[in-house]
Amino acid sequence: MAYTTDRFVREVRVTPILITDPPLLNLSGVHQPLTPRTVVEVETEGGHVGLGETYGDTEYLTAIQRVAPRLAGTDVSRPTALRALIDDVLGHDDAAATAADVPASGLRGKRDLAKLKASVFSVFEVAYLDAWGRHLGVPVHALLGGRVRDRVDYSAYLFYKWAGHPGAEPDSWGAALDPQGVVEQARLFVERYGFGSIKLKGGAFEPDQEIAAMHALRAAFPDMPLRLDPNGAWSVETGLRVARELTGVLEYLEDPSAGVDAMSRIHAETHMPLATNMCVTGFDEVPDAFARNAVQVVLSDHHYWGGLRATLDLAALCRTYGVSVSMHSNTHLGISLAAMTHVAAAVPNLEHACDTHRPWQDEDVITRPHTFTGGAVEVSDAPGLGVELDTDALADLHRRWKDSDVRDRDDVAAMRAVNPDWTAPRLPRW
Amino acid sequence: MAYTTDRFVREVRVTPILITDPPLLNLSGVHQPLTPRTVVEVETEGGHVGLGETYGDTEYLTAIQRVAPRLAGTDVSRPTALRALIDDVLGHDDAAATAADVPASGLRGKRDLAKLKASVFSVFEVAYLDAWGRHLGVPVHALLGGRVRDRVDYSAYLFYKWAGHPGAEPDSWGAALDPQGVVEQARLFVERYGFGSIKLKGGAFEPDQEIAAMHALRAAFPDMPLRLDPNGAWSVETGLRVARELTGVLEYLEDPSAGVDAMSRIHAETHMPLATNMCVTGFDEVPDAFARNAVQVVLSDHHYWGGLRATLDLAALCRTYGVSVSMHSNTHLGISLAAMTHVAAAVPNLEHACDTHRPWQDEDVITRPHTFTGGAVEVSDAPGLGVELDTDALADLHRRWKDSDVRDRDDVAAMRAVNPDWTAPRLPRW
Ligand SMILES: [Mg+2]
Ligand SMILES: [Mg+2]
Repeated sequence: MAYTTDRFVREVRVTPILITDPPLLNLSGVHQPLTPRTVVEVETEGGHVGLGETYGDTEYLTAIQRVAPRLAGTDVSRPTALRALIDDVLGHDDAAATAADVPASGLRGKRDLAKLKASVFSVFEVAYLDAWGRHLGVPVHALLGGRVRDRVDYSAYLFYKWAGHPGAEPDSWGAALDPQGVVEQARLFVERYGFGSIKLKGGAFEPDQEIAAMHALRAAFPDMPLRLDPNGAWSVETGLRVARELTGVLEYLEDPSAGVDAMSRIHAETHMPLATNMCVTGFDEVPDAFARNAVQVVLSDHHYWGGLRATLDLAALCRTYGVSVSMHSNTHLGISLAAMTHVAAAVPNLEHACDTHRPWQDEDVITRPHTFTGGAVEVSDAPGLGVELDTDALADLHRRWKDSDVRDRDDVAAMRAVNPDWTAPRLPRW
Repeated sequence: MAYTTDRFVREVRVTPILITDPPLLNLSGVHQPLTPRTVVEVETEGGHVGLGETYGDTEYLTAIQRVAPRLAGTDVSRPTALRALIDDVLGHDDAAATAADVPASGLRGKRDLAKLKASVFSVFEVAYLDAWGRHLGVPVHALLGGRVRDRVDYSAYLFYKWAGHPGAEPDSWGAALDPQGVVEQARLFVERYGFGSIKLKGGAFEPDQEIAAMHALRAAFPDMPLRLDPNGAWSVETGLRVARELTGVLEYLEDPSAGVDAMSRIHAETHMPLATNMCVTGFDEVPDAFARNAVQVVLSDHHYWGGLRATLDLAALCRTYGVSVSMHSNTHLGISLAAMTHVAAAVPNLEHACDTHRPWQDEDVITRPHTFTGGAVEVSDAPGLGVELDTDALADLHRRWKDSDVRDRDDVAAMRAVNPDWTAPRLPRW
């Protein structure tokens, strides 16, 4: 009988880490050399350890640390029940702005307490599912309805970038500061990982340069789905112009402008499919955006939509309303990639290759980092998430966190270190 | 390691049965003395048997029998993958009308191939989850995110009824043909099962009699949530009048009139919360009905919404759009009640007591029929659905099916046996 009290939580460990990150450019600035993540370990009475990984910024870390001590004695087979516990610890005023409240110019849309709680729930839900799967000896996807595919396709996630961080050696990717650099980076991605879809993070340069980059990618890769994501940097007029110039070139355009009004207009006037991880990042934002046809592709992300089952919920919403599903990514390591892959495997209506930052990270906290073959990750049938924690690596990255004063991702500050006049751009920038 | 090939399906058994049913009155006519159900057994290579129960009408039985032989070798841990297989067997033309296509006057709304397939998927999904849970030794709710409650509240489901079927002895419930009879029936329900909510199936008598019955129930049970369901029998004008007369009396009014137009108007003009298992019975009907605020309470039902995970999907949709969730029931036995209870236990936003016909059935196909205590069923933590098939009972009820020519539920025909002039009423009847 597997439904023994062995499945109850004995201990939860929360470990902040700093990981290296290349100088990737975006609307806000540039990625810092070190960026925070949080790793969660949930250990059951039976000795099974479930893993979760999420943002490491102070706001998230603090909330996770507040919830963690309350989890002893809870049941890894019942993660849904944690929502009430998290409400209890973090509060019920869902619409309250959080400490890191940001305007629409933020790279992930509006932030409020409900979204913070969804993220906190998510990291524990993933760890509970991993622990529960390990306890049972079955993969996480088999707790989510089962995989409907053997492999999950990911896309090459291109960035404009410097060759290296200021004062540091160039990295193996080199610089990409113009269309030719972007194409060269794409070639590396395809060569190294076999990706079959390409996304460029835009908003770093003037729209014409980014349009030129997409045309250069189209010429270099005639058959690949292409995407461009300026993080809402453009006015409606600019968005309209870019959408028209890239019609027939892009599979979808991601967040050309900020907000439901702007997105609706751009789609209505150009019919370009618009994807988002800014305009709609929580369930409460869905009805208005869907009613006004502001988004045609929702980028799911279990880290902030509220976990793996919430990702299935979102997919069901999208199916019901005739909206496509793809997947968003922030900087992450292999625990997150495993979770992304399990849930992606279980979503029937995943119509696009998923985004992942994973190739940009040289480090990992799992013993056998994932490999991309033909641009895809194989879906594991091993117990839980199918990854094992590299405790030495975790200790090293945690030591780095303790030895550093970097506590939050801050692309603006990183850019200001190079350009003292840099400020967070006001939207629309162009 | 529990993820062994033992979990693959060895054999599927489909058994049509006939069960006795009391003379319950509704808009269409009266329940027949015998009504069909289908029981499905899915046996794994490891010898675990998962159970499912659903409609027994020819259309469903035939479709289930067509799919069943294709299931050998499939994986009970991956029910979602069955959708593609069912499409393959039953076809892809989702909007095609089914054999039993009925107008909105039917008791369960519009029927098309997509809905038939959802029902076929559902019975197998439940059986797969049961088998998978038994294989793992864990309850079905623990494969759905886990229970968020220990007990699931059900409502007393009152019917106008004759004392017995024509020519037969009265049953233990006696007649209920006027408000006083309804109140007496309610007292029996509360006495026998402890229910704390009451629903009356209406549409059997003129609206004024049914209004009077609700007032009589209110007087007899001052604190109980009350519901009335005429199955769309009324014109908008009648619906408006009843909604106004029962404002403050009803928790919600169920399907007063047929269709989104009528429902929207009645809600807009009276603010009475309207529930439905007719206006919206499939995901494709959700967007229009929600956009026009036609329903404020969706009655989930895993038998036709497409299974237990689809019920969670529906609940997520309702949460997102600020619509309440309750649960619908047709005539059913204990396998269905177990499935209803597991999924109800896992839905956080289940705001109302669930409907169940179960008290009306004297028979069951499980060895230990459920008991209602304080109107609730305890959520089982036993493996799978937590019920065991009574193979002798199943054989008896199947023999009854073989010995009878009843193949479909037909309330109209049953009424015609008593009243030769009876025809299916045209809507609106009143
Ligand atoms: Mg984006
Ligand atoms: Mg009804």
